[in-house]
Amino acid sequence: MSPTLYGIGVGPGDPELLTVKATRILAEAPVIAWPAPLEGEGLARTIAARHIPAGRAEIAIRMGFGVDRAGAEAAYDQGAAEIAHHLEAGRDVAVLCEGDPLFFGSFIYLFGRLSPRFTVEIVPGVSSVMAAGAALQAPLCAWDDAVAIIPATRDEAAIEALLRQTEAAAIMKVGRHLPKIRRVLERLDLWDKARFIERVGLPGQRVFAPATVATLSYFSIILVHRRGNAWL
Amino acid sequence: MSPTLYGIGVGPGDPELLTVKATRILAEAPVIAWPAPLEGEGLARTIAARHIPAGRAEIAIRMGFGVDRAGAEAAYDQGAAEIAHHLEAGRDVAVLCEGDPLFFGSFIYLFGRLSPRFTVEIVPGVSSVMAAGAALQAPLCAWDDAVAIIPATRDEAAIEALLRQTEAAAIMKVGRHLPKIRRVLERLDLWDKARFIERVGLPGQRVFAPATVATLSYFSIILVHRRGNAWL
Repeated sequence: MSPTLYGIGVGPGDPELLTVKATRILAEAPVIAWPAPLEGEGLARTIAARHIPAGRAEIAIRMGFGVDRAGAEAAYDQGAAEIAHHLEAGRDVAVLCEGDPLFFGSFIYLFGRLSPRFTVEIVPGVSSVMAAGAALQAPLCAWDDAVAIIPATRDEAAIEALLRQTEAAAIMKVGRHLPKIRRVLERLDLWDKARFIERVGLPGQRVFAPATVATLSYFSIILVHRRGNAWL
Repeated sequence: MSPTLYGIGVGPGDPELLTVKATRILAEAPVIAWPAPLEGEGLARTIAARHIPAGRAEIAIRMGFGVDRAGAEAAYDQGAAEIAHHLEAGRDVAVLCEGDPLFFGSFIYLFGRLSPRFTVEIVPGVSSVMAAGAALQAPLCAWDDAVAIIPATRDEAAIEALLRQTEAAAIMKVGRHLPKIRRVLERLDLWDKARFIERVGLPGQRVFAPATVATLSYFSIILVHRRGNAWL
């Protein structure tokens, strides 16, 4: 067996939302790597903590919040080098990733660096989008709905065009972009059908209705569907 | 404790891709319900089989493949009535759903019927979209990409418009719509960047490159990203 690099989705926050497969691989892997801020263990490590046996070799891939592209590239370069060292010595490495590894996942940058040289296996995870639907009890889409996943950083015209052409949308990482998103949703008569959640699955999770949302943190998702609550 | 209706995402097919939470609830719930064809146990029940203790009460919600809307409504009406009977008697009911319960999930139709009257808890699951990315080792999206999830039944102009306005897309349930999808992807110079998978996570899973795909079954997904394989 050649050593394997595992990309492990640990889900959105609840430690019970790891898959059975993720927990099995974490119980067996001799080396665990995880993204982290400059200090502390980072969210992915916290989510997976109960599933990681004591005494494993661990690699922290550290970068500051809001780090620029060059800083991020340097951190992934160094992390990839440390991971490659273990793989070359014959040891499997499991990399933790919030949510799903390949859906806006930090694992993508290690995958790009290491997949040309090593065997890779991806363990998909529960995305924060699906967790938001579950927490809000808001069906995301059905039948032949088209769905848009839209980072709130996109410009106002692009967001409006996507919302016009789809039945359902998840708008991600809202934060300071809330006024722009609100303008678009109001223009399309969708504001009153929107649902809002901060820190889905994490301590401090909060949900809002259209009448009560004033600000949203960066760690937030808006779900909206043209049919509103008409699910029958 | 009031009796609870659980909507349980069992993931795309691999029995190891249930979450820890899903397996805990299935070990405890006195009644298990699942969608199924006219005969046999159905895919969701097969996926979850190893996690269901022997001797539980079970409810099959049966409908033929390609059933019309009225037939589906009648089947969900009957299933909801059977589930309500158990909840009214104080017994929790766990409903199995392939993938995620609220992302194109069959659970949505039971949710619409039963959530006004009963306590509901949703356990999100791994979607076939994320499982397709994992199986194809194809990153779905990163940074501030906009993503479209597009049923292949949508008309050609709508599909083209969505692909023009997003960096990434998953085109679902391709089947007989492949020639139409191919025309659009070729027009946008995206065909050579597309990846194809049938029966993700199930026995008989098959993947194709653009040069080798000739037909696709209904149970198929196309992933496409403007950046192709340039993930560094």
